[in-house]
Amino acid sequence: MELSPSEQLEFDRLKNIVREEHLKRGFQPIDTPLIYRSDVLLAKAGGETEKQIYKIDKGDNDLSLRFDLTVPLARYVVDKQGELSFPFKVSQVAKSYRGERAQFGRYREFYQCDADVVGRGHLDISYDAEVITLIGAIYDRFDLGNFTIRISNRKLLSGFWQALGLGEKSLELTQLVDHVYKMGAEEFEKCLSDLGVSDDQKPLVQRFITPEDTNELTLEGLKTLGVDNAEFASGLDELTTVLDLLKAQNADERVKIDPSIVRGLDYYTGTVFETTLDGREKEVGSVAGGGRYDNLANNYSSETFPGVGVSIGLTRLFSALKHAGVIVASKQTVVDTLILPFGPEQFAFSYWLAEQLRAQGENVDVLTQQMKFAKKMAYADRTGVKNVIVVGESEVETGQVKVKNMQTGEEQAKNVGQN
Amino acid sequence: MELSPSEQLEFDRLKNIVREEHLKRGFQPIDTPLIYRSDVLLAKAGGETEKQIYKIDKGDNDLSLRFDLTVPLARYVVDKQGELSFPFKVSQVAKSYRGERAQFGRYREFYQCDADVVGRGHLDISYDAEVITLIGAIYDRFDLGNFTIRISNRKLLSGFWQALGLGEKSLELTQLVDHVYKMGAEEFEKCLSDLGVSDDQKPLVQRFITPEDTNELTLEGLKTLGVDNAEFASGLDELTTVLDLLKAQNADERVKIDPSIVRGLDYYTGTVFETTLDGREKEVGSVAGGGRYDNLANNYSSETFPGVGVSIGLTRLFSALKHAGVIVASKQTVVDTLILPFGPEQFAFSYWLAEQLRAQGENVDVLTQQMKFAKKMAYADRTGVKNVIVVGESEVETGQVKVKNMQTGEEQAKNVGQN
Repeated sequence: MELSPSEQLEFDRLKNIVREEHLKRGFQPIDTPLIYRSDVLLAKAGGETEKQIYKIDKGDNDLSLRFDLTVPLARYVVDKQGELSFPFKVSQVAKSYRGERAQFGRYREFYQCDADVVGRGHLDISYDAEVITLIGAIYDRFDLGNFTIRISNRKLLSGFWQALGLGEKSLELTQLVDHVYKMGAEEFEKCLSDLGVSDDQKPLVQRFITPEDTNELTLEGLKTLGVDNAEFASGLDELTTVLDLLKAQNADERVKIDPSIVRGLDYYTGTVFETTLDGREKEVGSVAGGGRYDNLANNYSSETFPGVGVSIGLTRLFSALKHAGVIVASKQTVVDTLILPFGPEQFAFSYWLAEQLRAQGENVDVLTQQMKFAKKMAYADRTGVKNVIVVGESEVETGQVKVKNMQTGEEQAKNVGQN
Repeated sequence: MELSPSEQLEFDRLKNIVREEHLKRGFQPIDTPLIYRSDVLLAKAGGETEKQIYKIDKGDNDLSLRFDLTVPLARYVVDKQGELSFPFKVSQVAKSYRGERAQFGRYREFYQCDADVVGRGHLDISYDAEVITLIGAIYDRFDLGNFTIRISNRKLLSGFWQALGLGEKSLELTQLVDHVYKMGAEEFEKCLSDLGVSDDQKPLVQRFITPEDTNELTLEGLKTLGVDNAEFASGLDELTTVLDLLKAQNADERVKIDPSIVRGLDYYTGTVFETTLDGREKEVGSVAGGGRYDNLANNYSSETFPGVGVSIGLTRLFSALKHAGVIVASKQTVVDTLILPFGPEQFAFSYWLAEQLRAQGENVDVLTQQMKFAKKMAYADRTGVKNVIVVGESEVETGQVKVKNMQTGEEQAKNVGQN
């Protein structure tokens, strides 16, 4: 995805909001390499990832491009643990690479915006609430309409299957729930049967995965489901705590407890969450997700680094929003004021004036390219600058300039004097 | 080069200065891919580059990682020319890759900060002065001590050799001048002889490449050198114009005309420049350089896109400055204020307080990890936060908190109330 300058400005607006919110909340920015030894990258990954990876052909080393920001973070934490203080709150806004067949909304080169809190040995549950709060803060500022953050806890599902005597099929059943919204009720029931769920148990499964109207009712429903299992109880406990912490921050308005949320099979072990834009759930898909993991670095260290993180796939989001017409590429430039000197005799004054305006915080360009006046105005119009100041002989002499607003056409006289 | 969080902050300070100065002067940020078809990347490059390139092993396509930001810019300009307005002022702050043998100060993955002005058909000479001004603005804000921007024009050297009847050896002679500061006087003279420079001509060569005390005297010296060649005259004319334009912007203080500046053989055709930190010329080397090129895209388009650009190798600069002790990694964090709640009972108040301070522009973290109080203070000290606010029962009750300055140890009472 290569953007035109005006699209790039909108993309950068979103990227800068993410960076600012990370900073404001104490997430330290780090910058990790794109290239790793293939065995390091693939230590955690399955066969599907191996197929998508970009291998590098260089000397004897088996190198590859990273396919996400998780392995780079794991390596960073293990390598720099002596210099870090835990919990380590960390921000990565950077590109990754997957050699997928090019298809709509999937890019081979894509930005991810990850925020993680990593502990050593132990990490308090409160950080689960913190990264969920972060999603809300970012999407509030994105200003892309209402959104919903669906949260659950993986221990609920896992404990639920055990309590039903279906622990052996836990993985498959969880995978099935992950796809429940993509299939009809009949197909779902058939799949449940295939995996050994009895007809008696099916209503319980339905009750379990269907959220109630309020989070309180959903939690109450989970409590009264009659599931007698320690892992389920622990998951319910954590979920309740996270919701309470969100309430304490007035950050629960957009949050909906939804026990069908899974977020992939391998990685997450506790809290999980997924975000969608209201009314654009299918069109755009998940726009921010993440969760709690037991150990970031189990392939690289004997120490335990539990963490919780959230990832926003900014390239996919941007492309989907562009396609949905939410983001419209308009004439737009970084330039606030464009100064148009008549000719080289007015360059010095124009440069001087530009510096004055820059000192006042404006982005200013001076168009010194020689072209006809009409072409200069066309350039100003085409690039979408806000203001234009034409500098001729009399402007230099008197220090009186006219600032022309390119949207309204209004001109405002301004005495700039020259020192 | 992977940096610790506190080093990363200093690196990001420099990177952000570059981005801000680019924006302020109307250079539009773009974001180009890292991966290109190998034949596109290598269209312009010589054999040395081909050896350094990272090839990618993926399907049938012959792909590689970019080794600089010039090819990506050329592709961008050609692909998007219909959407662009010329002169197109463009900013790229991004990574490139070269598979050099790892050695001090050379990294396989490195940041370059490029600013270019690209014209279609023609580009006014004034933009040469503009990118030189940009270097000054950036290095003034870098605050790394005094610096010198050495400038010349490639037409001078080329015309000079022609006037001396040495046009056939022009390339080799220019390459020799490029290395004059690295060799002794005797060696230089011997090399001149080997390339056909007569003993009579040698004093003229010396006079030509040696700058005088002031730019005016150097220009005067070039004029009175007695070189009768149109290309030389044109180069002298351009150089004089560029210096005049720099004077008009009060941007000539750090600029020194130095006819021995070459900046590589293939690419540049007019103005060339190189920047060094005063007193660290050898230790750190060139810290910003660039020049004028006739055609950005001659391999990709039949149209002519002349341009002028400046590049700062930020990774190499940072590494050299770290090694020279100019950049010292100190305890440093993005966090202005760290809030330390005694326990979960104080979380809600602490979160609320954090949001108040964030709304005032502070970066704030809340340490909710459960640990002994002494450990919490050690965490605050170790991470280098500026202020600490401890929140216990009485703080929540009264809304009175104490802001502890971690450098001075002073405490300041503050009534924050709770709404």
